[in-house]
Amino acid sequence: MNNTFLKACRGEKTDYTPVWIMRQAGRYLPEYRRVRGKVGFLDLCKTPGLAAEVTLQPVDILKVDAAILFSDILIPIEAMGMKLEFHETKGPFIDNPIRDEASVWRLRTLNPAEDLPFVAETIKLLIKQLNVPLIGFSGAPFTLATYMIEGGSSRNFVNTKTMIYRNPGLFHLLMDKLTTMIICCLKAQIEAGVHAVQIFDTWAGALSPGDFREFELPYVKRIISGIETDVPVIYFPNNSGAMLNLAVESGADVISVDWRIGIADAVTILGDKISIQGNLDPTTLFGTHDIIRERVSDILHGAAKARGHIFNLGHGILPDTPVEGAVAMVDAVHELSSK
Amino acid sequence: MNNTFLKACRGEKTDYTPVWIMRQAGRYLPEYRRVRGKVGFLDLCKTPGLAAEVTLQPVDILKVDAAILFSDILIPIEAMGMKLEFHETKGPFIDNPIRDEASVWRLRTLNPAEDLPFVAETIKLLIKQLNVPLIGFSGAPFTLATYMIEGGSSRNFVNTKTMIYRNPGLFHLLMDKLTTMIICCLKAQIEAGVHAVQIFDTWAGALSPGDFREFELPYVKRIISGIETDVPVIYFPNNSGAMLNLAVESGADVISVDWRIGIADAVTILGDKISIQGNLDPTTLFGTHDIIRERVSDILHGAAKARGHIFNLGHGILPDTPVEGAVAMVDAVHELSSK
Repeated sequence: MNNTFLKACRGEKTDYTPVWIMRQAGRYLPEYRRVRGKVGFLDLCKTPGLAAEVTLQPVDILKVDAAILFSDILIPIEAMGMKLEFHETKGPFIDNPIRDEASVWRLRTLNPAEDLPFVAETIKLLIKQLNVPLIGFSGAPFTLATYMIEGGSSRNFVNTKTMIYRNPGLFHLLMDKLTTMIICCLKAQIEAGVHAVQIFDTWAGALSPGDFREFELPYVKRIISGIETDVPVIYFPNNSGAMLNLAVESGADVISVDWRIGIADAVTILGDKISIQGNLDPTTLFGTHDIIRERVSDILHGAAKARGHIFNLGHGILPDTPVEGAVAMVDAVHELSSK
Repeated sequence: MNNTFLKACRGEKTDYTPVWIMRQAGRYLPEYRRVRGKVGFLDLCKTPGLAAEVTLQPVDILKVDAAILFSDILIPIEAMGMKLEFHETKGPFIDNPIRDEASVWRLRTLNPAEDLPFVAETIKLLIKQLNVPLIGFSGAPFTLATYMIEGGSSRNFVNTKTMIYRNPGLFHLLMDKLTTMIICCLKAQIEAGVHAVQIFDTWAGALSPGDFREFELPYVKRIISGIETDVPVIYFPNNSGAMLNLAVESGADVISVDWRIGIADAVTILGDKISIQGNLDPTTLFGTHDIIRERVSDILHGAAKARGHIFNLGHGILPDTPVEGAVAMVDAVHELSSK
């Protein structure tokens, strides 16, 4: 197996900078759209043969150095009792959002083997076929809580924040339950064979540093220490460049950063104990190949002093991205970092 | 006139910390909704008597230390030839977005006295009645460019970034025209009597630090030096906490920061030549009065070493905010900073 990605996660020397792309199995690929044309999004996540198929697609097409399990961060909360739907244009929608104590107590304790058997099955199918490491993942507890409280995506997170500012005890109770669930799910993924895990904190940037420290960081720490694993843990606190010093305390082996911070500045904050992942603006892939190459070069140089660097976008690849832009990025990373 | 706000902008000693609220004349106020019930949003902006009336409302109701001209950052680009509408739920919509060179060349050069006479008229009405300073404003060129290119609000700014990454010359041409227009509008507002101006860069945070330095900062600098004024200039690069070191180069007297950065960290970056404005999470106003008071206290302490501090939210007040939350914040700022 090509373990360049795992070496970079651990801060070991590599022959070149490994690269993968958040949401690399996705709508920008015609091959993915062909599979999705036959099956709904949630069914795709829950059908091991198909989930494995779309997980493998970008590895073949883009030549990335890691695969990421095809699934969704909201799958486990559906199993906890949230009524989840995916609308084609509006994204996730939850019919029974959490607004009171009863609805928090009502959440089911999850047993991954029983409630999410397709996850381990997909992982086992993939392990047999992959020649690069497989990344498992979970949503971070705050990010999952926002979907559960808001009932979907949100612009200002008014319901979530109102709970934090009016009923912090209830919010902590919800976070506690989510933390237990996440530890359980990540352990199950590791047991099934994933080689690394990433915790996606898509909405961490909605919090002030003070609120992040009080209402999210302790739970992320508990997860990372609680999964008791040797596999590398990547933490992605999106849009949190001005509080990276707090994310450093999470205990993660790798911090993934979005594009709103210069990667050299981020490396300085992370120090020599944590590897970095990132951080090309996803829209760069809509640009000319010269621009893509130039920006890849800038980021490789900016990350030169990192303990380890895994190249990635600063956020998920966008649905309308030209495939040739993604290919150009991966090629540029491999070529320019080998010199 | 109570000039505490202006003193803080200039870094002079004040008896207490002045406070105002971005979008303080807005839908959260029943008094505002009463006026808006009779007239469309754009008509309200363009009717001096009514615009002055809603500008004054929060000064009376909240006892804030500054008023801000009621208008919209998109009004001048309408006068440049963009077909602008405001949809009740979806926000601004532009029917003829800029996608090619011809549409940039077609933009009209603006003459504020002729094209936007209502702006100076509103300012003149207000100056007679206000006992606190009046803030004029403009959108920053990048932020205005995104609306013109995307045709409204945007999530990922794909059209704007594609222009930057494929046709940077055309983007620079558009920015050049916007810069000239903004200088002209701000000069006209200052001539009509505003006591300070704020440049709203709502979407600055969509840019990487490298792109900000190349595609926005030079224009903001040109505006701030180009208006050749003694009135304080406030620059608000929203969601840019990890590139505040660049915003410092803008030449602004005050930098306004959002809530994603600890204010003490921001003060350290701004140094002793620039005052700070901000930065309470707007959703805090949905919380208990105890929480509001506690968070106000934290921010006042965090900003203790600032050259000058103008208290504000980290972004505009949200439409559903309870008025009593806003009142509690203003009272807490005045009381706690007077001690």
